[in-house]
Amino acid sequence: MFGARIENLKRNMVKQEVDVLALNGGPTLSYFTGLHFHLMERPVVLLLPVDNDPVIILPELELAKLEDLPVFADVFSYGENPDTWYGVAADAMTSLAGKKKKIAVEPVWLRFLEYELLRRGCPEAEFIDGSGLVARLRSIKDGGELAHMRKAVRIAEDALEATLGSVREGVKEEEVASELFLQLLRHGSEPDLPFSPIVSSGPNGANPHARPSERKLCRGDLLVIDWGARYNGYVSDLTRTFGIGELDSETEQVYQLVKSANEAGRNAGGPGVACSAVDRGARNVIETGGYGRFFSHRTGHGLGLECHEPPFIRGDNMEVLRPGMTYTVEPGIYLAGRNGVRIEDDVVVTQSGVESLSTMSRELRYL
Amino acid sequence: MFGARIENLKRNMVKQEVDVLALNGGPTLSYFTGLHFHLMERPVVLLLPVDNDPVIILPELELAKLEDLPVFADVFSYGENPDTWYGVAADAMTSLAGKKKKIAVEPVWLRFLEYELLRRGCPEAEFIDGSGLVARLRSIKDGGELAHMRKAVRIAEDALEATLGSVREGVKEEEVASELFLQLLRHGSEPDLPFSPIVSSGPNGANPHARPSERKLCRGDLLVIDWGARYNGYVSDLTRTFGIGELDSETEQVYQLVKSANEAGRNAGGPGVACSAVDRGARNVIETGGYGRFFSHRTGHGLGLECHEPPFIRGDNMEVLRPGMTYTVEPGIYLAGRNGVRIEDDVVVTQSGVESLSTMSRELRYL
Repeated sequence: MFGARIENLKRNMVKQEVDVLALNGGPTLSYFTGLHFHLMERPVVLLLPVDNDPVIILPELELAKLEDLPVFADVFSYGENPDTWYGVAADAMTSLAGKKKKIAVEPVWLRFLEYELLRRGCPEAEFIDGSGLVARLRSIKDGGELAHMRKAVRIAEDALEATLGSVREGVKEEEVASELFLQLLRHGSEPDLPFSPIVSSGPNGANPHARPSERKLCRGDLLVIDWGARYNGYVSDLTRTFGIGELDSETEQVYQLVKSANEAGRNAGGPGVACSAVDRGARNVIETGGYGRFFSHRTGHGLGLECHEPPFIRGDNMEVLRPGMTYTVEPGIYLAGRNGVRIEDDVVVTQSGVESLSTMSRELRYL
Repeated sequence: MFGARIENLKRNMVKQEVDVLALNGGPTLSYFTGLHFHLMERPVVLLLPVDNDPVIILPELELAKLEDLPVFADVFSYGENPDTWYGVAADAMTSLAGKKKKIAVEPVWLRFLEYELLRRGCPEAEFIDGSGLVARLRSIKDGGELAHMRKAVRIAEDALEATLGSVREGVKEEEVASELFLQLLRHGSEPDLPFSPIVSSGPNGANPHARPSERKLCRGDLLVIDWGARYNGYVSDLTRTFGIGELDSETEQVYQLVKSANEAGRNAGGPGVACSAVDRGARNVIETGGYGRFFSHRTGHGLGLECHEPPFIRGDNMEVLRPGMTYTVEPGIYLAGRNGVRIEDDVVVTQSGVESLSTMSRELRYL
């Protein structure tokens, strides 16, 4: 599997005239090697040259991990003294035969730490944005990856259901978040969650990225819960919004509008459809309902080994969906000082349309 | 507090002739502003010029967070389309009056994403390693920070004690790790743990960074547990090693050697002492005992808002300890194919010596 992924990468590198893909510790390095490295003060870099074997630069302390490496790689390890790292990196760069003029990197992962190692090791190189190169491979999930994602969705749904029994008026947001966290682990999520659950009630719900607070749930509140699980490295990312006790009629209408937008957004996707059309599908419903300016973010984002990855479901993204792509559909309406509604599902593009991986009810539910 | 930290920073910037400190989302940005941003595909950059007010570049989606900003800052926000980000960043860089030739960054935090924004926004700038500038402030903890760290240690110790009751022969490493994770949350850790607990038994213990596996604990095993908690952003990081059932006499001797090295390492610290002397103090014990080449890593690292931060307790680090510095002392012996021992405490430098924040027993305990 890993060897085939690297061969596939090399074919794309040839097309895009890239000489080397340089990866630091993170999901793409895991994708190509199965190895996991946390981002620490000690750099780890995998160099994937188009015309040669992979090369890995890493601390001696991590050498034991290479026993699990499923592909051949030349290894350059360094000791504890940072002054020696540049020399080791330069040797690694020199060992790459052939051209190494265009080095693709991942801008949201590669740090100044690794960049300086590579730049000094190969001063003549041009560093380019390799996001597209990586996304082309990682955004199309195979059967094994989809099975992991389905399981991550199932864990998340079961964990929330197990949590809701203790959610009622008077309970604090942070208490709900803690219980949900425990239930996610108990239902089989890896502890490295895609993100800490968002539990935001009443006016706090108007901030899409709120942190759970000491606020107690009140009668008449909307309660937004945005949460996810991780299974074999792959994530889920869902949102449901609930009513506490009762809601006024405008709030109920806003809820129904978001529910319709979520449905329209899900239905708008399919092979050959532009990401922008999915965003448009969801946004039209909210704009027609008169709340367009309160839907303040994109409709969704890809997910897989990362919680936010391509394809991004934005109005200006003309990228076309292909079978095997997975992304969120998460329209929302945010009324500052009052409340917020968001309903988020994870979907996969099939040969004929879109299938929602998440199936938990989207009907308005009172707690 | 935040204003005073920024003034203190500026005094150090003058001394080091740095014009701007550029921070992306992470602990140092939290240290200076109290704001928390996760590293996402959307960049957040705080510019701290030596001669002017702070400037912040962030997504419109995150503007609500600035309501909590305790200091004045000029705000430059951008929308969803990445093509517009460079223009906004260039405007932000232009708004900085005065010199902006030397821009300090944090190599282990700043990504190629933010670096490119800054570089294109100010092509004439020289980017330098600002780690030392930041460490000079952050490594000296004040009373409030120490109180958070003491609490993070207490949570970790109580959580492990609550876990040990269910640890015995036949239990899987990953089961121990899950239970410990739950207990950390239950005892009050923030869900964003400093790292996922390491639970490694028998031969797995010979890898200092092992991931919990399906291996079941066996009679005669050593069991290494390396774990920590987070409280108000500040972390603890501890290790204890246990015996399962019984141990052979050489293994018991190795344990006692590491215990002595831990004690010697703790006692070697104090104000005015070089980090290298602390490393030497612990390492001498293990070398004298004949296991020097099996102690394959540095003796410790600083901790605070990050789990690994300066001062690094390495044999080649001549940096001098000062009151308020906090770091780990964690000697270990790793015997490939057999087992490992590590005993790790968190200490703070006082006016007269070193105080261990962690007090859990270091005597060999059988489970």
